[in-house]
Amino acid sequence: MAALLDELRQALGGEVLSVEAAILDRHARDATGIAPHRPLAVLRPRNTGEVSTALRICNSHRQPVVPQGGLTGLAGGATPRGGEVVLSLERMRGIEELDPAAATMTVLAGTPLETLQAAASQAGFLLGLDLGARGSCQIGGNLSTNAGGMKVIRYGMAREQVLGLEAVLADGTVVNALNKMLKNNAGYDVKHLFIGSEGTLGIVTRAVLRLHPKPRSSVTALVATGRYEQVVQLLRSAQAEFGGVSAFEAMWQDYYRFVTGADPSRIPPLPATSPFYVALEFAGNDAEGDPDRFEAFLGRALEQGLVSDAVIAKSEREARAIWEIREGVGAWNTRHNGLHLDVSLPIASIGDFTERVRARLQQRWPGSLNTFYGHIGDSNLHLSLDMGSDEEHVRHAVELCVYEVVRDMGGSVSAEHGIGTLKRDYLGFSRSEAVVGLMRTVKAALDPNDILNPGKVL
Amino acid sequence: MAALLDELRQALGGEVLSVEAAILDRHARDATGIAPHRPLAVLRPRNTGEVSTALRICNSHRQPVVPQGGLTGLAGGATPRGGEVVLSLERMRGIEELDPAAATMTVLAGTPLETLQAAASQAGFLLGLDLGARGSCQIGGNLSTNAGGMKVIRYGMAREQVLGLEAVLADGTVVNALNKMLKNNAGYDVKHLFIGSEGTLGIVTRAVLRLHPKPRSSVTALVATGRYEQVVQLLRSAQAEFGGVSAFEAMWQDYYRFVTGADPSRIPPLPATSPFYVALEFAGNDAEGDPDRFEAFLGRALEQGLVSDAVIAKSEREARAIWEIREGVGAWNTRHNGLHLDVSLPIASIGDFTERVRARLQQRWPGSLNTFYGHIGDSNLHLSLDMGSDEEHVRHAVELCVYEVVRDMGGSVSAEHGIGTLKRDYLGFSRSEAVVGLMRTVKAALDPNDILNPGKVL
Ligand SMILES: Cc1cc2nc3c(=O)[nH]c(=O)nc-3n(C[C@H](O)[C@H](O)[C@H](O)COP(=O)(O)OP(=O)(O)OC[C@H]3O[C@@H](n4cnc5c(N)ncnc54)[C@H](O)[C@@H]3O)c2cc1C
Ligand SMILES: Cc1cc2nc3c(=O)[nH]c(=O)nc-3n(C[C@H](O)[C@H](O)[C@H](O)COP(=O)(O)OP(=O)(O)OC[C@H]3O[C@@H](n4cnc5c(N)ncnc54)[C@H](O)[C@@H]3O)c2cc1C
Repeated sequence: MAALLDELRQALGGEVLSVEAAILDRHARDATGIAPHRPLAVLRPRNTGEVSTALRICNSHRQPVVPQGGLTGLAGGATPRGGEVVLSLERMRGIEELDPAAATMTVLAGTPLETLQAAASQAGFLLGLDLGARGSCQIGGNLSTNAGGMKVIRYGMAREQVLGLEAVLADGTVVNALNKMLKNNAGYDVKHLFIGSEGTLGIVTRAVLRLHPKPRSSVTALVATGRYEQVVQLLRSAQAEFGGVSAFEAMWQDYYRFVTGADPSRIPPLPATSPFYVALEFAGNDAEGDPDRFEAFLGRALEQGLVSDAVIAKSEREARAIWEIREGVGAWNTRHNGLHLDVSLPIASIGDFTERVRARLQQRWPGSLNTFYGHIGDSNLHLSLDMGSDEEHVRHAVELCVYEVVRDMGGSVSAEHGIGTLKRDYLGFSRSEAVVGLMRTVKAALDPNDILNPGKVL
Repeated sequence: MAALLDELRQALGGEVLSVEAAILDRHARDATGIAPHRPLAVLRPRNTGEVSTALRICNSHRQPVVPQGGLTGLAGGATPRGGEVVLSLERMRGIEELDPAAATMTVLAGTPLETLQAAASQAGFLLGLDLGARGSCQIGGNLSTNAGGMKVIRYGMAREQVLGLEAVLADGTVVNALNKMLKNNAGYDVKHLFIGSEGTLGIVTRAVLRLHPKPRSSVTALVATGRYEQVVQLLRSAQAEFGGVSAFEAMWQDYYRFVTGADPSRIPPLPATSPFYVALEFAGNDAEGDPDRFEAFLGRALEQGLVSDAVIAKSEREARAIWEIREGVGAWNTRHNGLHLDVSLPIASIGDFTERVRARLQQRWPGSLNTFYGHIGDSNLHLSLDMGSDEEHVRHAVELCVYEVVRDMGGSVSAEHGIGTLKRDYLGFSRSEAVVGLMRTVKAALDPNDILNPGKVL
């Protein structure tokens, strides 16, 4: 151990290698809320060469390494398990190039997402990735977790925003797969190995992101419907009408009640009596025509009985009030024991799923609060639950109770947060043995000494 | 050899295994036009189990296998090199499910693309993949080559149309990674290993494809511009104006002249005097408003001098006449020695690239015909060349001459057709040593006996 640290210090210097208690503590955990572990040391390289040197040395000592981005991850992927060296990307930030002709941005992995969004916007483009942690999370972390967020229904996951990347393998090899082209079929597209693999196959150091045209108009509405099938029908007819919607957030009554009931002095946009609510947004390009088309569409939906009630936001403020309901889960942890799950299911099954899960939970924990909401259009459902206890064994029992239904209905135990350590025991619920076996084959081939984030995912 | 065939026949029966000359001949080559090679036998399994059995037996005999789809490939990937067994997917066709709620289609790999397009359309959706070979190519071949085609600028490559797939590994293991969800971050997304790997890592047997809403309106125009930078500016401003364009096909003057000059009795929509032409299409959803917005946009582009001339198609017939110019390269082979290259480059560089390539070609082959055209928006450029000879050594000299410029300008020697055998010598022009090394690592891990399409890609 001392030999390893000496070698790292000699090769990289005291500016890169830290062993001070305050720094070790800062890197002892991510946002998951599981037990922290102080790493042996924190490496903060300034460039790809230093990342390569660090990994080469660690690999030769078979020293486990935990890659860290902005530490906002919710699966425990960036939390050390004990005995690791942390490699943080925080000093590798910056935009190397924004190419308006190619509509691409070449960036360093440690750059915060928000910085990239602002730069894209200033150049007249839009980055198709957004999540609540935008101010702290890093693009390298977003790619390593294949982050989702609010724009997936329109622009896809983080994976879809990447044209190329640079990564460093466990042995220090620098894989330069930077690429600015939408079409490049010269052999295997190796960048996909690093996206969504949570730092277990390589460390992402640079990326080329694609940029989208910025929408020019935006219309928001809140509607109420009676049945889950109508929620899906509404989604598909809105997409058919507008070629795509930019947001579609379904909320079950319990959720809507919980959030709108939080502040009795505020009257909700629609009364809390319907089984389902949907906040939907259409971001288009015809600032004059879009609002009328949107209103006409909702009018027809009301006539046909597809929705039972609807309000269209007439101002920025009214639109914000609608989104605050969807984002109101933020208030949860101040009033309840937080237990938040992130799953996905085939879209048609989501209604049944919530009924089955609710019945199971109520049977075992009568009177517990079980709320459901989700993007739906990208098959993602969130559960916020209060079982009256936040003890570890209750959390586990609830997870099992929910994930068993996910498994039986062909869903995924992780829609967007990844597996990390938190869901490792449940990976087999959503992936067949052969698929997990193939993951292991790839892991063993790329990281034979198992130094990159060992014990995560697999 | 006899032992192998016996074992295959015993396990699979004479209906699956053929050694008749006529069948061997039919499977001796793809559409590339390189030397055919009769395989030892042709296996035509009827289901995934039979594919698995076939591979297990071949693997235990270390018998090379060439996977074949519709044999429309243009890189030699499906052409045997000698001594292989062919495994054709042609009997595994059909649509297992079309799920309108999920907007997905679950299909067998041997189904022709056109069949899938028709089924999607009948259900009110659009499959975001289209290419000239649609009647013969199979979806399994499309995924294995990560096919591009006409819709990439709007919907992305074949890869982007896939939510899940089933594949069989070299040792016969069936990897069931079927998935209907847009969001699924349960571990590595192994489907990407099989997409674009040209049958060297596994045999694709099934796929879940995502479907898109069908556009309701479509406007087509042909415009003329003076400089390549204006072509790019036009692309970006059309995208900003409409949120996206559905087709954008740039043609250099030589190409336009060649195609419109083919039939002197037909007057081209615009005279052949401009340096550049662009056929562009906007497929939207507002059948009333879209044509006016499109016309207003082109009016502004003319005023600003961004384009020098423009015609908007006023009927289906006029739109077709515009697309016939872009597709007019079909007439090429009847009048010229065909030499067609498919490359991609960072969009800003494509203008320079054509000038450098033209200068090089003219220096060595003065008076040769060198025409350029391409989707541009997805960075793809096509070259159709007539060097006055179709001898092998001339072809090679031309390829080298062009690909050296591709290499120097950071482009790809294969935008969409893949590497196969035809471009194997040039893979290193577009991929770094470390990237090619990583491809080899993956290949060795998944197919240690090198039985799957050996000698292709790598
Ligand atoms: C308020 C809040 C809202 C959130 N909303 C969303 C949401 O809507 N959608 C969503 O998907 N997630 C969401 N998350 C989760 C989290 O923000 C994402 O997972 C994010 O992508 C993590 O980025 P990070 O830089 O913080 O990574 P970290 O937490 O530091 O690391 C995450 C994983 O990636 C690895 N890693 C990090 N950087 C690299 C690198 N450069 N190379 C290799 N491996 C690396 C780590 O080892 C770890 O396994 C949210 C989190 C919070 C706190
Ligand atoms: C007229 C014409 C127009 C074309 N236009 C385009 C275009 O616009 N864009 C474009 O990208 N291509 C185009 N192509 C090329 C070709 O059509 C595509 O590459 C197509 O995807 C090949 O599909 P296929 O089923 O014919 O595959 P094949 O030619 O049979 O095989 C192609 C490769 O995939 C492998 N393979 C096939 N099926 C499987 C499977 N199930 N599992 C594993 N490996 C498999 C083969 O081994 C081979 O390496 C065109 C070709 C023609 C003839």
